Amino acid sequence: MGDGKPDTLEERMLDSEQVYRGVLLDVRRDRVSLPDGTESVREYIRHPGAVVVIALHDDGRIVFERQYRYPLQRVFLELPAGKIDVGEDVELCARRELREETGFEAREWGYVGVFHPCIGYSDERIEVFVARGLEQVGSALDEGEFLEVFTMSADELDAAVRDGHITDGKTLSALYLARDHLG
Amino acid sequence: MGDGKPDTLEERMLDSEQVYRGVLLDVRRDRVSLPDGTESVREYIRHPGAVVVIALHDDGRIVFERQYRYPLQRVFLELPAGKIDVGEDVELCARRELREETGFEAREWGYVGVFHPCIGYSDERIEVFVARGLEQVGSALDEGEFLEVFTMSADELDAAVRDGHITDGKTLSALYLARDHLG
Repeated sequence: MGDGKPDTLEERMLDSEQVYRGVLLDVRRDRVSLPDGTESVREYIRHPGAVVVIALHDDGRIVFERQYRYPLQRVFLELPAGKIDVGEDVELCARRELREETGFEAREWGYVGVFHPCIGYSDERIEVFVARGLEQVGSALDEGEFLEVFTMSADELDAAVRDGHITDGKTLSALYLARDHLG
Repeated sequence: MGDGKPDTLEERMLDSEQVYRGVLLDVRRDRVSLPDGTESVREYIRHPGAVVVIALHDDGRIVFERQYRYPLQRVFLELPAGKIDVGEDVELCARRELREETGFEAREWGYVGVFHPCIGYSDERIEVFVARGLEQVGSALDEGEFLEVFTMSADELDAAVRDGHITDGKTLSALYLARDHLG
């Protein structure tokens, strides 16, 4: 561009190494070539992707969960969500997670879009769905998974966000993306 | 509660281990006691926290960046943001990151709130600020940091979100939290 700036923002992988493989986390460390030709290191989490579900009762109340999140040592209010299994269709994943975590099946499913919760150090994507026509069929939590299900009206949700009671990023991002689908 | 469910959602640390310490990532693996008394493992990133800035020109245009994000191998449209230095005041951090990344100083600063981008496997928090009264003083990017600065009107931003051109979670969460501060 003639002003000393690189022509592109792209970073190229020189080599890649798995530096930790645990029960949950797959951590990579890549050597990369930067736009100006120098070398650097990029460390990040490899993630299978996830879904989040905005499940609406006929009266407009939204299904929420209270769940303890160990990294932050406290309970969060959040939308139902979960990781995509290997090879799993994303809408089937959304149906499975809603049923397992909350016990609800839904007659109508709508796709909202995708976002990336943590672009600095994770390749995770989260696919957002809206579900309507809920019917209680009974939940089946994963082993080691504990949560409580409740509902909020749109007004209660607005107040909870304004008062700082909802700080979960995936919940906030999903609600923002779904603005046109709600209300 | 008499229905076989545990009385609390809390998980207690039994021991904690640093399993990877790189240039960016600090990865922990804790053994925990679950609400039903069984044991499990929790793996997560320790993060220093970050800020994100919604910087508004007098005509309402919002300052954005194009930045290559290596974990996802592509350029993202995102609000200015950056990690908090050890012991750094969060508003001073927001001022520093806005100036370093975009070259702008701002006369008016407002605090919006906090969110947690990745509660499943990171303790990161992101503090959200709104900045007005912008003046260009010149940028000073960190070594190895490459980005382009541009602006969007509120209408352009709405369209970019709707069309799926903005999928960065911190940008979406910050805009949702700041609804009452904008427009």
